[in-house]
Amino acid sequence: MVNKVADEPQLLSKKAGCNTHGQDSSYFLGWEEYEKNPYHPTTNPGGIIQMGLAEQLSFDLVEEWLEKNPDALGLRRGAASVFRELALFQDYHGLPAFKNALARFMSEQRDFRVAFDPSNIVLTAGATSANEALMFCLADQGDAFLIPTPYYPGCDLKWRTGAEIVPVHCTSANGFRVTRSALDDAYRRAQKRRLRVKGVLITNPSNPLGTAVPRADLEMIVDFVAAKGIHLVSDEIYSGTAFSEPGFVSVLEVLAARAPLAADYTLDDRVHVVYSLSKDLGLPGFRVGAIYSSNPAVVSAATKMSSFGLVSSQTQYLLAALLGDKDFTRRYLAENKRRIKERHDQLVDGLKEIGIACLESNAGLFCWVNMSHLMHARSFEGEMTLWKKVVFDVGLNISPGSSCHCSEPGWFRVCFANMSAKTLDVAMQRLREFVQTCSFKAAPAALRRAAGPARSMSCPLAMNMKWALRLTPGFADRKAER
Amino acid sequence: MVNKVADEPQLLSKKAGCNTHGQDSSYFLGWEEYEKNPYHPTTNPGGIIQMGLAEQLSFDLVEEWLEKNPDALGLRRGAASVFRELALFQDYHGLPAFKNALARFMSEQRDFRVAFDPSNIVLTAGATSANEALMFCLADQGDAFLIPTPYYPGCDLKWRTGAEIVPVHCTSANGFRVTRSALDDAYRRAQKRRLRVKGVLITNPSNPLGTAVPRADLEMIVDFVAAKGIHLVSDEIYSGTAFSEPGFVSVLEVLAARAPLAADYTLDDRVHVVYSLSKDLGLPGFRVGAIYSSNPAVVSAATKMSSFGLVSSQTQYLLAALLGDKDFTRRYLAENKRRIKERHDQLVDGLKEIGIACLESNAGLFCWVNMSHLMHARSFEGEMTLWKKVVFDVGLNISPGSSCHCSEPGWFRVCFANMSAKTLDVAMQRLREFVQTCSFKAAPAALRRAAGPARSMSCPLAMNMKWALRLTPGFADRKAER
Repeated sequence: MVNKVADEPQLLSKKAGCNTHGQDSSYFLGWEEYEKNPYHPTTNPGGIIQMGLAEQLSFDLVEEWLEKNPDALGLRRGAASVFRELALFQDYHGLPAFKNALARFMSEQRDFRVAFDPSNIVLTAGATSANEALMFCLADQGDAFLIPTPYYPGCDLKWRTGAEIVPVHCTSANGFRVTRSALDDAYRRAQKRRLRVKGVLITNPSNPLGTAVPRADLEMIVDFVAAKGIHLVSDEIYSGTAFSEPGFVSVLEVLAARAPLAADYTLDDRVHVVYSLSKDLGLPGFRVGAIYSSNPAVVSAATKMSSFGLVSSQTQYLLAALLGDKDFTRRYLAENKRRIKERHDQLVDGLKEIGIACLESNAGLFCWVNMSHLMHARSFEGEMTLWKKVVFDVGLNISPGSSCHCSEPGWFRVCFANMSAKTLDVAMQRLREFVQTCSFKAAPAALRRAAGPARSMSCPLAMNMKWALRLTPGFADRKAER
Repeated sequence: MVNKVADEPQLLSKKAGCNTHGQDSSYFLGWEEYEKNPYHPTTNPGGIIQMGLAEQLSFDLVEEWLEKNPDALGLRRGAASVFRELALFQDYHGLPAFKNALARFMSEQRDFRVAFDPSNIVLTAGATSANEALMFCLADQGDAFLIPTPYYPGCDLKWRTGAEIVPVHCTSANGFRVTRSALDDAYRRAQKRRLRVKGVLITNPSNPLGTAVPRADLEMIVDFVAAKGIHLVSDEIYSGTAFSEPGFVSVLEVLAARAPLAADYTLDDRVHVVYSLSKDLGLPGFRVGAIYSSNPAVVSAATKMSSFGLVSSQTQYLLAALLGDKDFTRRYLAENKRRIKERHDQLVDGLKEIGIACLESNAGLFCWVNMSHLMHARSFEGEMTLWKKVVFDVGLNISPGSSCHCSEPGWFRVCFANMSAKTLDVAMQRLREFVQTCSFKAAPAALRRAAGPARSMSCPLAMNMKWALRLTPGFADRKAER
């Protein structure tokens, strides 16, 4: 029997046919426009300013360290080369020196309130891989995980695992905090769809909210998973960015402080943490992620899965030295948080001046910004119209809330750490002019006439912009975590 | 509704519960014994010699290059640091300089008879990841791939993809070459199991056979997949090890030379190559694999999947410089092949002297060795008994054919490139003594008495060995490709 060649010429899997990964969302489409016409203060001052990228502020500190420690990059241990040793290194468990240093660094991120056992760490090529491996370990096809909205859209957990994502709807009414009733509601919706709920996945500090989950909320979420007998995955890749009080609390702290209840049976086995160095250390290109779990079966299965995405031994060696330098990590964490806070305040204050409010935040490399009053219509169509104006006319690539599965239109994620303070000023100035135009247009016609002809925001920018009539799809396959 | 906590305390996925990855096979179990008691010429001369590891011979050439090119490791471009650029680099398509150099190197491996288009390359964190991503792209749960035996057992393609592997049984009668009737037979068996056959996966040059697939066989296999309208995946990670004529022929050469038939409709879209730098360049620790495909849908889907296992940008930068040096790659490939042939001949000649034959081979870092005459019984139990003797008594960690799904007992994969010529001599000497003991024991009792008491092979070694009563399972989760 010959397969029907004519009907299915490529004979691919359903997965390959259904390219939903990253969902080709506006989150990524804005990127494409940015890449066509990137802002530069002197060579392209009318270009698009990239505010969709959660990068770090403190590369200079790492670079300075590298200059003082050439052996780490040079794959040397004193006079001897370790090249051969590393070239051949392929233990799934990772370089012991790196895992020990990483465990200590993860503890330091949490002000040493939690200790991490290196043997409970599984290394993965980035947090995307860590999250997917955990999903493979915890959920079968058709099982479900509950995820509070808004959430980061970059990692498609469903695509290859077949696990369903059921949103836990959070709203601005309480600052987008997760509530027990929202969890119960999501659980019920999953049951109605005949899905078996296997767990809750939170991101703490939240991307895109920029808020560390309050201890009370963590306790409520732990109560929920304990009562339901399900898993909790806590993605804590932004833990080192919490810059002001009340600071970041890890779910592991909550677990340790908890007076065990009957329902807590095996709870320790059902709470798993995801970590990475992409955000806290600003190294997404180096692809270093980790799963932390006290469940031996999860550690064992995830370790085996890590064969599908191991971390380069060259990179492990470098980072073992970097993170093993306690003076460096202490200085880096403190100085980096100081810089994040400064930049955060610059953005929040600048937006406030022009009448734009942010969700109050204490972490992350972005703010969650309410621009609903600038929309023509309070709908997701209105949000998309406003977003296109901000990208094309104002020249700022920000991320619309709908791309983060937000259930309320009008919110945007605005990143502030991947640019200079001066560029952030330029962005604020552009937004100020745009808001004035909006206010002006919204004013009564008589008032408008009195003020003379309306200023066109788009003119000076348009000269340097290639106008795209359509946002080209397919960009989502190009970029890793933002 | 609460999940039944007491019944299923861990509530894991079926995958996590079924840890078949790498199959905890003797392939890996021998490793564990080796690690307990590794041979060293002076400090542990009675230890186990590792002959289960397909490593390269020419690290010194790479090391020499690194010393002459410190900028590649130092992340510098002349006076400028490229650290920041690389730290932030996260384009799924990889560093253009690296992909260009890799495409050229892959072409050079094939003596420039095939050109590779860098835009058809998808980078993955090792060949394991490349093979699994292709499987995700081409097969749905319950679809099948046909794989000629014996084959490398390290990469579990079924575990997460759900694809079934149907063996194509090859035998010593024709030197383990794939035949059309063996393919037809496997296809029929798959159909009987109601599996939809999506393709054939070959490893060329073969691991564990050490043979490059002859052009005529490739043509026959291409005919088969053309006629059936299915895919062909050719894992060519050992292409640079083919050390004597007739050399390695890539399936892409066969495809290019083919006069298209009606059945070849979309054939170009259904042939995919896997490559990696783990074997040809001896860098398994750096985790660099690749998929090469002319099928845009496969390239697109696999690129998106690569977000679950990207190659470190630090490593891409280093290798762009290394592979971009044409003088280096030319010298490396030629000298490395010369060394492999020398070591191969040493093993083959040594074995011949003691009456052990190998499959005639022209590639790879191992030989496929026939020890069936040393078995007490011509069965897989006999093979296992002999293997345990070779590991525990003789002190050589070789891989039994059964661990490579060989359908005939008595064959073993013996690696020769991960040790010095002197250590290989020691291994040969041990094997010689063992074979003499076997022959002696096999001789009539009268003859044995006349020769005095039989020499015990195990005594001198046992002193340095921790005797394991049972091969501990669970080792398969520790090691990457061998």
